[in-house]
Amino acid sequence: MTNSTTQMMNDPALKEILFNDQGLVAAIAQQHDTGETLMMAWMNAESLELTLQTGQVHYWSRSRQALWHKGESSGQIQELKDLRLDCDGDTILLLVDQTGVACHTGRRNCFYRAFRNGQWVEIADVVTTPDKLYGK
Amino acid sequence: MTNSTTQMMNDPALKEILFNDQGLVAAIAQQHDTGETLMMAWMNAESLELTLQTGQVHYWSRSRQALWHKGESSGQIQELKDLRLDCDGDTILLLVDQTGVACHTGRRNCFYRAFRNGQWVEIADVVTTPDKLYGK
Repeated sequence: MTNSTTQMMNDPALKEILFNDQGLVAAIAQQHDTGETLMMAWMNAESLELTLQTGQVHYWSRSRQALWHKGESSGQIQELKDLRLDCDGDTILLLVDQTGVACHTGRRNCFYRAFRNGQWVEIADVVTTPDKLYGK
Repeated sequence: MTNSTTQMMNDPALKEILFNDQGLVAAIAQQHDTGETLMMAWMNAESLELTLQTGQVHYWSRSRQALWHKGESSGQIQELKDLRLDCDGDTILLLVDQTGVACHTGRRNCFYRAFRNGQWVEIADVVTTPDKLYGK
């Protein structure tokens, strides 16, 4: 645990955040000006601290079990505009300015499947390809 | 498990939803017309089925370990307008029409605390009181 994380956890204001038994809190990213819901991911204390320090959103990747600086490989960063906490402290709302696309599929947001007549229908086009985002 | 839930889980489209090891999926509720993020809660297969059947959002209350028809005691229901699923299938976005207030504190949405200068500041007023919402 880094010094900055320790400082953060010592801060009474940030103790309002209720991390789960894996040390994580759910984080919703929303485009600050349009209201578009971009994605949902998870943060631990250190990723939250890094987000506050750098102004760019960091998550915790549960699949990779590692810090995840959003856009680190794709360039599709999220600039933090405002940080909100919900009533019971277990969900964070990140108001961000999303560079390019939020979704690893190359779509602007991750919620591109809509339930229509009993099936999921893709309602958003791919803006850029994963190959372009991540290289081959 | 009810018949309808069984039908739902047999539906290939709904098998796209990846419930966690507790049988739950994260669900974000967003006001469909203004884009306001209202709350985040959890759904199991049965609550999702009830939501689709009734057109009113049902969650699974982790604290009460029970189905939770949003607004059942307060009248502050959420009418489902659209249902979205994210790229990896573990988060649902509910586009809803919220009657009254979404938050049990009597605020319009649950994300009424903003991080400003090192502390959480309440940025939304109480619209109605919990006493009025739930009785004494």
